[in-house]
Amino acid sequence: MDLIFSRSNPKIKGLRALRDRTSRLESGLILVEGIFHVGEAVAAARGGKLALQAIYFAPDLLRSEFALGLIREQSGLGTPCYPLTVDVFESVAEKDNPQGILAVARPRQYALDDLGPQNFPWGVALVAPQDPGNLGSILRSIDAVGASGLLLLDGGADPYHPAAVRASMGALFWHPVVNTSFKAFAVWAREGGYTTYGTSAHAPLDYRSVSAYPRPCILLLGSEREGLTSEQAAECQVMLRLPMRGRVTSLNLAAAAGVMLYAMLEAE
Amino acid sequence: MDLIFSRSNPKIKGLRALRDRTSRLESGLILVEGIFHVGEAVAAARGGKLALQAIYFAPDLLRSEFALGLIREQSGLGTPCYPLTVDVFESVAEKDNPQGILAVARPRQYALDDLGPQNFPWGVALVAPQDPGNLGSILRSIDAVGASGLLLLDGGADPYHPAAVRASMGALFWHPVVNTSFKAFAVWAREGGYTTYGTSAHAPLDYRSVSAYPRPCILLLGSEREGLTSEQAAECQVMLRLPMRGRVTSLNLAAAAGVMLYAMLEAE
Repeated sequence: MDLIFSRSNPKIKGLRALRDRTSRLESGLILVEGIFHVGEAVAAARGGKLALQAIYFAPDLLRSEFALGLIREQSGLGTPCYPLTVDVFESVAEKDNPQGILAVARPRQYALDDLGPQNFPWGVALVAPQDPGNLGSILRSIDAVGASGLLLLDGGADPYHPAAVRASMGALFWHPVVNTSFKAFAVWAREGGYTTYGTSAHAPLDYRSVSAYPRPCILLLGSEREGLTSEQAAECQVMLRLPMRGRVTSLNLAAAAGVMLYAMLEAE
Repeated sequence: MDLIFSRSNPKIKGLRALRDRTSRLESGLILVEGIFHVGEAVAAARGGKLALQAIYFAPDLLRSEFALGLIREQSGLGTPCYPLTVDVFESVAEKDNPQGILAVARPRQYALDDLGPQNFPWGVALVAPQDPGNLGSILRSIDAVGASGLLLLDGGADPYHPAAVRASMGALFWHPVVNTSFKAFAVWAREGGYTTYGTSAHAPLDYRSVSAYPRPCILLLGSEREGLTSEQAAECQVMLRLPMRGRVTSLNLAAAAGVMLYAMLEAE
């Protein structure tokens, strides 16, 4: 293919637009940047978890044999792979000193009704999380413990924000992520026979005294600022407290999710 | 005091300079922004953990009775409290829509030799962590479990970076943080009789099979990218593995620290 050498090439403008949440939502497409992350996206495409729409690369930046192999493979499968000048690549790259490869991908879309105890026995639900880095870290922990996926309730940060994609280290491509309302979640969880475990600084039960978390189950966490409201806590079968021995009254959201997910792994 | 209405006032220039790591290092001063964080800095000053050098506030932005009370209290104690116009305040604030209060503080400095099994029975040591948000989150978890403090080995992110200060939710003010070399740490830990616990994806021992973490002990974690080198792992009495059931080979650094710190709390 011919080298794209103009920053105002329509394809390049389209790439830049994907930095915007609205464009991502309208197109169903996301940006994946860097060798490791594009490699994970290609692996997920092989596994049928997402569709790779195109790869963009800067031949003068990209030295990795692994990455060049991905381009040969995908090119052979019919995925358009566009070479860019370094200048044009840098105009679309999110990071300084980019590695010279990015992909446009269409993640598989899931609805709440696609998920149930059979294919989603152990999920995390977050109420309006604000930080995309936390979302990505939590997806990484979900993958690490072998949990099923993530439910995002009542809005919040975009799981396809570049910071979330990066922080998930590829986990985002492999696990269902569903945006829904708290109300729809509550009905779905009850109908599916899920046990919902919530956390609160004031819960009477120390999580360390729970000896088993039978599946199907959901770990429900409130937002960074507010935690769970009392109405949300009322939807939980079990409310748990993480001991707080110092001055802070809570953990970082991704740290809390990590501690709870490993506790649930231990006591499955 | 007279309202500061010029962005080029020397005090205002000095505040802006504190966004820079070099200025923070040279002056020993840090910036603390927002009502909650200034409140925690004042509490730590009352506890003798840091010195409050000055408070800056925008009377036209600051509505919180709690914050105005802090200013009255500190003003009465002789801490200079400077009122700024909204325009000048916004020129120094890190955040959009600032709450209208920030403080300049001098944290207490600790050297490795100040710390030992008596006053530092349970610490975390990080090798060259790169992300200031991770540093802050880890300090928050250290505070939550009642651990002692943080050792930063061989450089890395600044624990007084505004993102670290924010993420620590005040924990930074209450716990010793020491910058040192891995080499000096290793000598200190051996002389103090510490048991050092490291983590690695390849360690033969699952952390869940450890039934006690006798004090004094250190949790040693490698950097986000590299983990521990084999030389660093060789300094650990015990190397542990967090089970990884999916595709990712590690957790986010702050998530890993959270999981391990709660495991060590459970089994103290």
